[in-house]
Amino acid sequence: MHKGTKMKELSNDLSNLAEVFSSLFPAGEVAAAQTFFLKQLSLSAHQFYQGKMQTLPKAGIWGFNWFNVWYTPGVSAVSTSIRDLDARAYDLSNKGNLVAVVSDSTRVLGDGDCGKHGGLGVMEGKAMLMKYLGGFDAIALCIDSRDEKGKPQAQKTIDFVKMLQPSVGAVNLEDISQPNCYRVLDELRDACEIPVWHDDAQGTACVTLAGLINALKLTGRQVGNVRCVLYGAGASNSTIARFLMISGIDPAQMIIFDSKGALHPQRTDIANNPSKYRQWELCQKTNPTCIDGMENAMRGADVLIALSTPGPGTIKPEWISLMAPQSIVFTCANPVPEIYPYDAKAAGAYIVATGRGDFPNQINNSCGFPGILKGALMVRASKITDNMAIAAAHSLADFAVRRGIHSDDIVPKMDETDVFAYEAADVAMQAITDGVARLQLSREEVFARAKADIDASRLLCHKMMQDGSISAPPEGLIREALNATKAKFCR
Amino acid sequence: MHKGTKMKELSNDLSNLAEVFSSLFPAGEVAAAQTFFLKQLSLSAHQFYQGKMQTLPKAGIWGFNWFNVWYTPGVSAVSTSIRDLDARAYDLSNKGNLVAVVSDSTRVLGDGDCGKHGGLGVMEGKAMLMKYLGGFDAIALCIDSRDEKGKPQAQKTIDFVKMLQPSVGAVNLEDISQPNCYRVLDELRDACEIPVWHDDAQGTACVTLAGLINALKLTGRQVGNVRCVLYGAGASNSTIARFLMISGIDPAQMIIFDSKGALHPQRTDIANNPSKYRQWELCQKTNPTCIDGMENAMRGADVLIALSTPGPGTIKPEWISLMAPQSIVFTCANPVPEIYPYDAKAAGAYIVATGRGDFPNQINNSCGFPGILKGALMVRASKITDNMAIAAAHSLADFAVRRGIHSDDIVPKMDETDVFAYEAADVAMQAITDGVARLQLSREEVFARAKADIDASRLLCHKMMQDGSISAPPEGLIREALNATKAKFCR
Repeated sequence: MHKGTKMKELSNDLSNLAEVFSSLFPAGEVAAAQTFFLKQLSLSAHQFYQGKMQTLPKAGIWGFNWFNVWYTPGVSAVSTSIRDLDARAYDLSNKGNLVAVVSDSTRVLGDGDCGKHGGLGVMEGKAMLMKYLGGFDAIALCIDSRDEKGKPQAQKTIDFVKMLQPSVGAVNLEDISQPNCYRVLDELRDACEIPVWHDDAQGTACVTLAGLINALKLTGRQVGNVRCVLYGAGASNSTIARFLMISGIDPAQMIIFDSKGALHPQRTDIANNPSKYRQWELCQKTNPTCIDGMENAMRGADVLIALSTPGPGTIKPEWISLMAPQSIVFTCANPVPEIYPYDAKAAGAYIVATGRGDFPNQINNSCGFPGILKGALMVRASKITDNMAIAAAHSLADFAVRRGIHSDDIVPKMDETDVFAYEAADVAMQAITDGVARLQLSREEVFARAKADIDASRLLCHKMMQDGSISAPPEGLIREALNATKAKFCR
Repeated sequence: MHKGTKMKELSNDLSNLAEVFSSLFPAGEVAAAQTFFLKQLSLSAHQFYQGKMQTLPKAGIWGFNWFNVWYTPGVSAVSTSIRDLDARAYDLSNKGNLVAVVSDSTRVLGDGDCGKHGGLGVMEGKAMLMKYLGGFDAIALCIDSRDEKGKPQAQKTIDFVKMLQPSVGAVNLEDISQPNCYRVLDELRDACEIPVWHDDAQGTACVTLAGLINALKLTGRQVGNVRCVLYGAGASNSTIARFLMISGIDPAQMIIFDSKGALHPQRTDIANNPSKYRQWELCQKTNPTCIDGMENAMRGADVLIALSTPGPGTIKPEWISLMAPQSIVFTCANPVPEIYPYDAKAAGAYIVATGRGDFPNQINNSCGFPGILKGALMVRASKITDNMAIAAAHSLADFAVRRGIHSDDIVPKMDETDVFAYEAADVAMQAITDGVARLQLSREEVFARAKADIDASRLLCHKMMQDGSISAPPEGLIREALNATKAKFCR
């Protein structure tokens, strides 16, 4: 512990987490100590509650005779109505407000392959965010896609999701490792009659685009003249590249790097690798003069978007220094950005965004998917088009502009919960425009119901905490996690 | 309407349903009118609430920083803990308190094949019963098991459930048509590391056995001397036959009928049909003297258990008259019993049970599965053995004896909700005895926690109704359904 610093009490709502940790630990260890603490607390809190999601009725049981309505014999009318008209499933069951979060746990957040059960904590967490922020229901499904030799099979995941379709309004694919994730997503998006969302691709691209829109605004840039470098060519950055082109950025002014160098029309290694067909598309469209090397690419560039290997040290300060004045740097690897924001700023960056909540400008997917999926569900969309995700990016950017933006505050934060109903409304309208909506609603209708659902969902969660249906964390849970952290970091 | 009868008001809790209907409709039409009314109300109520189940957090969100505990970065500790020890999934996620209700909707209650979405109402209903009566969570999964030609494939359902295993503590298979249901169940029960429950088989057999135990008690019969006729040789009755033999009934004193006649060792049609291997087992064990014809079988029989074609008229009064004095008749086809209870009694039956709530002695699966599955979940059972279901039957029978039984009240009703914790405790103890429990708990521990969970679950449902989180049914919903019923039945 810092000598002479008076110890601060960590509150149960953790609202003073940053303050307490910066008072307790040396500057260089605050981030590591905080992560350690959160993991300790996470483990004991999950153990105490035995997970974090449950199911409950949303319709009343005002007496045991109501089971004759909700179940046999009354429910027979529901079965035959749906039998006679498939679409009635949306009216008569919870399908239309339900998302399955499906993972094979082969690439669980930062932790890689975690075995068949390993993604349960993350998937339940995502389901919790969906309900609390987006006002819709979600179930966590970790599936065993492995063959007899233990190898995950893309085909098994594809078959599972296809079979699951009747029960849910959308599927969120999560934490499936490469290269399976591409084939799984592409095949399912084609084959399914409900949206199949991949948050690492369209989700990250949406929130990144939202930030970029406002960063360009703050630096007075026109989209047609912007020179972009994308560092990393995985699911996120390849989708971001697509979104940027749709949004008017000139592909000839775009240079994308994978681990072997810049993409360009001469990259025969990519041309000859069928599993890299997305990257090959980008090779043919971008960087026509075959510039290679980060020094060359970064010279005079306006924007860098890095989604690659966790740093620090992945992106060099010298590269940042080569950029145009008022440069925009998104350094979004998790858990550690490719270059720390203070180093990027010292090297000349004007606006810096990361994936982390403890730095300004967090590019946080949780600002995107709850609103996007809610909007898609409300019009019973069959797909989530790129245009729909881009509409959500504009929703996010506009929302931030309305309440004021500056270089250290370019996108809404997760706790600006009013944004989700706007996103839902804009996404729903775009679904109608794109012809993928099964239900035609007005913007006002979607906005009003999305807002009502989200407000009701949060209100109910808070009531459950207040009336003891969800008990308070036991005395000592937070203190013990903090003590363990101090024992490790205060020597 | 009955002329001169003062119309009674139907209450919102439907508690006076029987009374109102018997005052409104002619005796011969009460049952049909009531079913019609319940279907009408079911349709409008499902439409109003858009289904009946939702998901909610069971852990608190006391501030947005708690998402760093429930989700990234804290949740990483959960992912890696489960990765390093699979069993931790039960401690750290909701897996251990969650059942998937899985159906391919090919035989939805009385309505047959209802298409891929058609079982959603029934499966959500079952999930509602599980939460309200059993205090555990459940998700309704209607799956599309059809091939390109639209034919349901047993193998697809098997693959789906195998893949689903990591996410749930047990699977309830429901409403899968013959012959697929047998193969699906048998293969999954062998292959899965979690219980795979088939309510039509073990569930019906459990509650039927409970009723029979008390009926034998009331008529002073010893199990070893009882002569039984089973009418119907489907999933329910073939499991009942197995339970009866385990319980001490002499197979040589048992005669089972399928649609072609009595089962016995000479039934070569069954011997030569591999899909009827269960029936062939029964042929070899029962009815060694090859008695055939219901008249011959029923002469002097103590017990008839019919689970066959809906009546009335399936079981003839003359057959009942041939039985021993104080005969016991279970006539459990749905929605209409093989013979009406008053006709069976007129023909000499002493104790009559049916599947219907509007007659005495309802054999209701809802008295079984909530307690059985809760008990299995609590000790993290890998299977539900026949012994466990039989233990639940004794729980049910003993519970009824403690509060008093008579010939028109042999089993607990669904609203005697205290029974479920007893069942859970007895089932859990049997799981430990049978070596299928992963967790060793005392009977007192299981009983106390099951009771606490069930009480909490019902309390929360009632709070949600009281505080408006679940709104009251709209003014007119019940009245309109009643008016439609009157328009149809009062001419």
